[in-house]
Amino acid sequence: MLIIMKRGASEKNIEDVKGFIERKGFNAHISKGEIQTVIGAVGEKVIDPRDIELLEGVSEVIKITTNYKLASRIFQEKDTIIEVNGVKFGGGNVGTIAGPCSVESFEQMDETAKQLSKVGVKILRGGAFKPRTSPYSFQGLGEDGLKILRKVADKYKMAVVSEIMEISQIPLFEKYVDIFQVGARNMQNFNLLKELGFIRKPVLIKRGLAATFEELLMAAEYILSGGNSQVMLCERGIRTFEKVTRNTLDLSAIPVIQKVSHLPILVDPSHGTGLRDKVAPMSRAALAAGCDGLIIEVHNKPECALCDGAQSLYPQQFSQLYKELKKIAPIINKKII
Amino acid sequence: MLIIMKRGASEKNIEDVKGFIERKGFNAHISKGEIQTVIGAVGEKVIDPRDIELLEGVSEVIKITTNYKLASRIFQEKDTIIEVNGVKFGGGNVGTIAGPCSVESFEQMDETAKQLSKVGVKILRGGAFKPRTSPYSFQGLGEDGLKILRKVADKYKMAVVSEIMEISQIPLFEKYVDIFQVGARNMQNFNLLKELGFIRKPVLIKRGLAATFEELLMAAEYILSGGNSQVMLCERGIRTFEKVTRNTLDLSAIPVIQKVSHLPILVDPSHGTGLRDKVAPMSRAALAAGCDGLIIEVHNKPECALCDGAQSLYPQQFSQLYKELKKIAPIINKKII
Amino acid sequence: MLIIMKRGASEKNIEDVKGFIERKGFNAHISKGEIQTVIGAVGEKVIDPRDIELLEGVSEVIKITTNYKLASRIFQEKDTIIEVNGVKFGGGNVGTIAGPCSVESFEQMDETAKQLSKVGVKILRGGAFKPRTSPYSFQGLGEDGLKILRKVADKYKMAVVSEIMEISQIPLFEKYVDIFQVGARNMQNFNLLKELGFIRKPVLIKRGLAATFEELLMAAEYILSGGNSQVMLCERGIRTFEKVTRNTLDLSAIPVIQKVSHLPILVDPSHGTGLRDKVAPMSRAALAAGCDGLIIEVHNKPECALCDGAQSLYPQQFSQLYKELKKIAPIINKKII
Amino acid sequence: MLIIMKRGASEKNIEDVKGFIERKGFNAHISKGEIQTVIGAVGEKVIDPRDIELLEGVSEVIKITTNYKLASRIFQEKDTIIEVNGVKFGGGNVGTIAGPCSVESFEQMDETAKQLSKVGVKILRGGAFKPRTSPYSFQGLGEDGLKILRKVADKYKMAVVSEIMEISQIPLFEKYVDIFQVGARNMQNFNLLKELGFIRKPVLIKRGLAATFEELLMAAEYILSGGNSQVMLCERGIRTFEKVTRNTLDLSAIPVIQKVSHLPILVDPSHGTGLRDKVAPMSRAALAAGCDGLIIEVHNKPECALCDGAQSLYPQQFSQLYKELKKIAPIINKKII
Repeated sequence: MLIIMKRGASEKNIEDVKGFIERKGFNAHISKGEIQTVIGAVGEKVIDPRDIELLEGVSEVIKITTNYKLASRIFQEKDTIIEVNGVKFGGGNVGTIAGPCSVESFEQMDETAKQLSKVGVKILRGGAFKPRTSPYSFQGLGEDGLKILRKVADKYKMAVVSEIMEISQIPLFEKYVDIFQVGARNMQNFNLLKELGFIRKPVLIKRGLAATFEELLMAAEYILSGGNSQVMLCERGIRTFEKVTRNTLDLSAIPVIQKVSHLPILVDPSHGTGLRDKVAPMSRAALAAGCDGLIIEVHNKPECALCDGAQSLYPQQFSQLYKELKKIAPIINKKII
Repeated sequence: MLIIMKRGASEKNIEDVKGFIERKGFNAHISKGEIQTVIGAVGEKVIDPRDIELLEGVSEVIKITTNYKLASRIFQEKDTIIEVNGVKFGGGNVGTIAGPCSVESFEQMDETAKQLSKVGVKILRGGAFKPRTSPYSFQGLGEDGLKILRKVADKYKMAVVSEIMEISQIPLFEKYVDIFQVGARNMQNFNLLKELGFIRKPVLIKRGLAATFEELLMAAEYILSGGNSQVMLCERGIRTFEKVTRNTLDLSAIPVIQKVSHLPILVDPSHGTGLRDKVAPMSRAALAAGCDGLIIEVHNKPECALCDGAQSLYPQQFSQLYKELKKIAPIINKKII
Repeated sequence: MLIIMKRGASEKNIEDVKGFIERKGFNAHISKGEIQTVIGAVGEKVIDPRDIELLEGVSEVIKITTNYKLASRIFQEKDTIIEVNGVKFGGGNVGTIAGPCSVESFEQMDETAKQLSKVGVKILRGGAFKPRTSPYSFQGLGEDGLKILRKVADKYKMAVVSEIMEISQIPLFEKYVDIFQVGARNMQNFNLLKELGFIRKPVLIKRGLAATFEELLMAAEYILSGGNSQVMLCERGIRTFEKVTRNTLDLSAIPVIQKVSHLPILVDPSHGTGLRDKVAPMSRAALAAGCDGLIIEVHNKPECALCDGAQSLYPQQFSQLYKELKKIAPIINKKII
Repeated sequence: MLIIMKRGASEKNIEDVKGFIERKGFNAHISKGEIQTVIGAVGEKVIDPRDIELLEGVSEVIKITTNYKLASRIFQEKDTIIEVNGVKFGGGNVGTIAGPCSVESFEQMDETAKQLSKVGVKILRGGAFKPRTSPYSFQGLGEDGLKILRKVADKYKMAVVSEIMEISQIPLFEKYVDIFQVGARNMQNFNLLKELGFIRKPVLIKRGLAATFEELLMAAEYILSGGNSQVMLCERGIRTFEKVTRNTLDLSAIPVIQKVSHLPILVDPSHGTGLRDKVAPMSRAALAAGCDGLIIEVHNKPECALCDGAQSLYPQQFSQLYKELKKIAPIINKKII
C-alpha cells in the first residue's frame, strides 16, 4: 500500500501516518520526494484504505497488492487443469457441460441426456434446487431431482453438475453430484463458500450480477483458502442498463481472468443472453476468445420447460453448434471435449 | 398477461397460442382488433413470457400484474407500522437505528451506546457475523459479539439489530436479537428468506447491489408468504459506474416503494456513500424525501474501527445531525424517534 | 504520477522507464524501497498511464493529480457565486429555475410564467431546440421559441435559460438567453464546450447519462479554460439497471462536488426521476443535501404538454413545494430564492 | 400502443382516455375483457406513454411498435451491403478497417499503412479531430491530419475513415474522407446526425457509452430519414461497474442488431477493451459471433503513440490476428476482406 501525502503535509502529519500504520501491523517505508512524500506500508494485514485517507495530510491511498493470493498467477504460474469424467478444463482444454435448466422428470432427463451423449457430451447439468425470484415459481424437485440426475447420468456414463443453495445441502450433494455449482446470487454467500473449501470435489462458481472480476476471484479465494484447489470460474453476464438481453455477457472476462489467475474460466451463454437464438453465436464467440469451458442449456422440449425454456437449445441446435466449435478450437490451439 | 400477435398472424397461430397458455393453466381471452389480435392470459400461474414469445406469430408478451402480492398496496392499502422498543417505522413515523458496523469489544459498544442513548436512540446496530469480500479480513466476533450487543443494549434499555448470514444461525439470533437484518449480498439467498418467514420478529432486508425495486419487493414476498408480516426494506446504494462513492444511493427508492408497497422503507446512508462526510447530507436528504427510517453507522472511535470506520460518524457528529433531522421532520409531517 | 515497479524489476527496466517518461516531458524521481521501486513522474504533461504500464518491469501506474485544475478547490478555495437577475447560486445561496420542458406557445409560456412569478421564481426555463431520441418527435419551435421565451420573461421581469445544441446557434442564444444550458447528451460535445468558453454569460452544464463526477468537472474545465468562469454544474440522473425511474438521481453529487470544486452544483429532479409524483420528494432531498440550486419543470397544463408533461409539476404543486423548501433551507443555513 | 385500464376503471375513465388519445391524433380501438379493458391506440404520431399513464383509471401503457422504421428489418428484409474500395460490410461479408487512433505524422501513417496494406487491409482509419476528456490532451492535427491520411491512403490505394465532430467540418470531410465516423460521445448529437443524412457517403456510427440498442438504431434513423441509406453501426463497449477493462464490450450486439435491423454491425475491440492484449481474443470472438466488420487500432510504434497506444496492436500482431480471422470466417459462412 502506498500513502501519498499532500503537497504541504507537515512532519507531524507524516509521523502520525507512520504511527497509525505501524499500530495496524505494517512496516512504514518513507520516501520524501521534492514535491510530495510517499509512505509505503508493507505487510500482510488487511486494512481499509479509507481509514488512512481520513488522516490529516493524506492525499490518496493506493493498494498495490491484489487481495487474492491463492487464485493468483503469482502464486501458481501454470494453469490449473480440472478433470472430470475424462473432460478437462484449463491448460488448453475446453470442457463442455450441457443439459436443461432444471430437472423436471426422468423422461425429460433421459431423452436430453441420450441426445447429448450421442454428440459426445460427458457432463450433464440440471438444477434440483432452483433460486427463483418469485416464491410462487417452480422451486425444483429437490432430492428427487438429484436422484433422477444421477440415475440418468450413470445410464449414459456422464458426470453431473448441479447448483447448491445452502450449507445443509452439502451431504446430499456429496452423494449425488460430481461438480458443485454456486449460482450468481450466492457468489458472495461467504459461509457457503467457506464450507465448500472443505469438500474435495470441483466447485464451479458463477460471477454475480454486479460482481467485479476481483470479487469473483476473492470468492474463489474463500474456497481455495479452505484447502479445495479445484475451483472453476464462470462468466454468465452482468447486469447493465441494456434490457434486450437478460444480462450483458462480458466475454472480456476470458482474457482478463486468464492473465491474472490460473483457474479455468468457463462461459454460460444461456444465462448470459437469456435468448435461444443468441446462444450459438455467443458460444462460438466465447470459444474464439479462448475460454476454458462452456456450460450450455439444452432441453429435449424447450417449449415445455418449467424454467428458462426460452434460453435452452434444442438438441439438434446444440449438435450443430458443437460441430462449429470443434472447427474453431484448433485455430486457437485448443482441444474441445 | 397480454400476448400481442404479429400483424399477419394466422388463425392457426392464434389457436396454437391459445392452446399453449391453456395447457399452462391460464384462461385465454381473445380480442381481435383491426390491426392486431391481442390474447389476454388470465390466471395465477407463473410463466416465463419468453416461452410464449418464441411461438409462431407472436410479436410481444406483456406482463400486466406485478409479481409480488402480499407486499403490494393493492393487497394492503394502509402503511404497515412496525414498532420495536417504542420506536415506530412507517405510517408517518421515522425510526432511527444507530451503532457501529461491527461489535469489536464491550468497551466500544458500551461507549457508543451510552452516547447514542443520551441523544435518544433506542435501537442499537452492530454486526457479529460479517460478510467480507476477503477471507483474510476480520470476520466478526460471532456469538460473543451478539452477547456483548445484548448486554450493552439491555444496560441502556435499547433494542438490537444484527445481520444474519445463514439459516443455522436463526436459533442464536432468536436469543439475542430484536430485529433480524438480511444484508445486501444475501437479498436473494432465498432459502434464508423462506426460513425468516417462519420467525415472528421484524426483518430488515437490504436492497442488493444490482437488485431492482421489484426484486427487493419479491425478496420481501418470500418472507411475507411464510407468515411473517413484519418486513422493513432498506435502500443502501446500488452499484454503478461511479466509483467516488462506494455505491450510488438511490433515494428515489423512497417515493417509488411507498407508492406500490405498504412496507416501511429505510435508508442506510453509511453504506450508501461509504464516506463519513457524505453521511449527514444524505441522511437529511433521505428524511426530506420522506423515508420511514434511517440506519446510521456511529462508532466511538471510528479511526480505530476494525471495519468501515471511514463511513462511521463520531457520536458528536451524529448528535448534531439528529438535531437537524428533528427540525426537518415536521415540515413533511413526519415524527422522528 | 507514480510508477510502481514489479518486485523483480531490473536496473535496466528502471532506467528504461525513467528514459521513457523523460522523453515524454516529465521529471523522474526514483525511490528505491526494500521491496519495490517507485518512480515519481513530475510534470504538467498529459500522458496515458497505460502506455507506461506496458513497459517491462512495471507493475502499476497511478495518477496522483486530478485532471481538472481551474474547476478545483485547490485552484480556488472560495465558492463561485453566480448571480442572474438577483438570484444567486453558490456560497450558501440556493437559486431556483422553473418552467416547462419546451416552449410550445405564447399562451403556455405566459400562463406558466405568470404563476411562477407570483410564487417568486425569477429565472424561467424553456426549450426551443429539443434533443429528441426519435427524429419523428417534436423538435421544438426554434428561434420562434426563443422569441416567445424572451418576451414572456421580460413581461414578468424574469431571466431566461434554454438549451443550446450546436455552435452555430451561439449568436442566436446571445440575443435571447441569460444562461446557456448544455444538455446531458452534449456534455462531451467538446467543440461546443470550447466555444462556450469564449462567451461571457453563465453556462449550466448537465451531467451526462454515463459521466463520472470527474468527467463532469473536465467538461466544465473546457469552458473555464476558454476564459468563461461562470459555470454551473447540474446533476440530472445517471443511467443504471433500474428502470422504474427514468434515471437514477445521484444526490451524492452534491457533497462530492462541493468538496472538490468551487462551482455551484444544481439538481434537476424532473429529468432525474421522470415522474411527476417523485419530483417534490427529490427536490426536498436535494435541498436537504445542500445543493446550490434547483431546476424544476413546471407546466400550466402538463397533460397537454408536447414533451415530458409526465414529469412536469402543476403550478399549484410547485407553489406547495416551494413553501416546504423555504422551511428546509434555514435548517442547513442556506438562503433560497 | 396499448392502454391497459385498471380492474375497476369506470366508463367515464375509458371515455376520457379515448378522447385524450383521439385528440393526440390516434384512432382508439376499445376491447372490453372480462377482467380489464384494453384500448389500442393506432397511429403514426409519437406520444409520451407516461402522459397517458397519469390519466385516471389507467393501469399501464405499452408501446407495441418500435420507434425506428427505416432501420428495421420490417422496412427492409435483406441485409444492407455497404461497399467501399472493394470491401463489403453486411450480407455475409466482413469488412476490416485498421489504423492508428490518431494521425500524428506522415511517417507514422506511411509506415503503418504500408504494413497494413501488405496484409490486405484496404480501409485506413486515423483521427484528425480528437474528442478528449481533458482540454489539456492532444487534440489532433486537424485538417493537416486529414491531408496526411488522404495522401498516405492514396499511395497504398486505400480508402479512409475519420471521425467528424461538428457540422461545420462536413465540407472538409467531404474532401478527404470516404467514410464519416460518428464517435460514441456524439451518438446523440442529433443536429450532426441530421446533417449527415444529407451527405452521400457511408456513415459509421458508434454506440454511446450508455446507449441502448434501440437508441443506437434511433440515431441511425436520424441519418436514414435524411436520405442517406449507407449507415454502419459499431459496438465499442458500454460503461459498467467493471473497471479492469476500459469499457464492457457487448458482443451480443451482433445477434441482437442483426435480428431487428438490416444495417451492418461492426465491432471495435480496441476501444471496447482498452488493452492491447485483449484485442486479438475479442476480435476473434466478434467474428465468431457473426459481425459484419471490424475496426482495429494498429500503430507502427504503439509505445510512442500520442493517443491510446496502449490499445493499439503492433503491425505483426495484427498480421497474426488477421490470419486467424481468415480461418474462422468460413466456419460461419462469412467472407472476410
